[in-house]
Amino acid sequence: MYCLYYSPGACSLASHIVLEEIGVPYTLSLRSSVRSEGTRTPDYLALNPKGRVPALAGVPGRSGGAPDLLTEGPAILFFLARCHPNAGLLPADPAGEARCLEWLNWLSGTVHGQAFGQVWRTARFSDNPDHHAAIAAKGREDLVAHYTAIEAILADGRDWAVPDRYSIVDPFLLVFWAWGHRLGLPMASSHPAWAQLTGRTLARPAVQRTLAQENVVIEAP
Amino acid sequence: MYCLYYSPGACSLASHIVLEEIGVPYTLSLRSSVRSEGTRTPDYLALNPKGRVPALAGVPGRSGGAPDLLTEGPAILFFLARCHPNAGLLPADPAGEARCLEWLNWLSGTVHGQAFGQVWRTARFSDNPDHHAAIAAKGREDLVAHYTAIEAILADGRDWAVPDRYSIVDPFLLVFWAWGHRLGLPMASSHPAWAQLTGRTLARPAVQRTLAQENVVIEAP
Repeated sequence: MYCLYYSPGACSLASHIVLEEIGVPYTLSLRSSVRSEGTRTPDYLALNPKGRVPALAGVPGRSGGAPDLLTEGPAILFFLARCHPNAGLLPADPAGEARCLEWLNWLSGTVHGQAFGQVWRTARFSDNPDHHAAIAAKGREDLVAHYTAIEAILADGRDWAVPDRYSIVDPFLLVFWAWGHRLGLPMASSHPAWAQLTGRTLARPAVQRTLAQENVVIEAP
Repeated sequence: MYCLYYSPGACSLASHIVLEEIGVPYTLSLRSSVRSEGTRTPDYLALNPKGRVPALAGVPGRSGGAPDLLTEGPAILFFLARCHPNAGLLPADPAGEARCLEWLNWLSGTVHGQAFGQVWRTARFSDNPDHHAAIAAKGREDLVAHYTAIEAILADGRDWAVPDRYSIVDPFLLVFWAWGHRLGLPMASSHPAWAQLTGRTLARPAVQRTLAQENVVIEAP
């Protein structure tokens, strides 16, 4: 049985949604909140030396931490979708799969790891606190550009991030939508296509169940 | 026919190696060197607004730039391996695939985007040049830890990054091996398991052909 290590409202929310979508049994292990360093405790670091969420127990293989623990959100999302094809969360062709991975890699590395990291995890980038305001400001500037780029892609008439179907990318985009609100960005007014996609995503029962379980509120635009 | 946008010795080297491994016809488009801003020209930005390499033309779909252009190295590597299964560059099971994606996402986002970015692309993180030395120093410190983590994973007796087979991860690891040398890290002495894997990777004819085409030298450890 899978066990998902998560923090409420963190990027692990997407993996949690996909577990609900595919409908298999799983357990949850709360790492309190990311902000309270709940992922940096000695017991969790022994399990997952990266000290991040999400992580999914129950996946054959080993990558530096506990056996059978899979890390990296995009890898978890893709794994769950590939193991449970009946849920239809991946396109059937390699090019469609690759478009999912293109989204996930960019959102995970460039948008989250770099830009949100600079804003919310500023100390990762310089040991000198005097530098932190400028580093966070640059991250925020990059985020505005990234969010504009997301809207431009979604505004070409597609219904979902990868056209023609709801996929593992859409729950991940929902996380970034919520984080944009948390940053105070003008989400709905500046990102109308993304707002519509968010409404469609929020209408899914699996998404509603997951938000209720994490006690996270994301209002429909 | 595929066309790979690349810069010699950049992370696009891994995609180039995989094109050689699978043995399909392709063309190359040189973006001069990354360091000389050859990926930031107006013509290239019109094609690929991310202004990075690698990018692969010839893949159905659209993600903000030219139609049929696929960006993000991990997506390109996975796509090529999935379209050409006879090359055997991916494990046959979803867990093995997920272990590949776990490596690729971490190497691309955390190791390259964040840590190498801080060292080689410091201006991305703060507009104030007075901050750059400290940001680069923090990136270098993180890289030493990341490289130690890579060695720890590879030292468990496995022959390849994902055990049991040469996969799309190994050419990507070769890029980071070469970059470690460029940084002046003690690659062979501090990373003996990785050194052995590098020797196995360098022995492959497709790798040798690719290095010769890019006029890049990576010495066997």
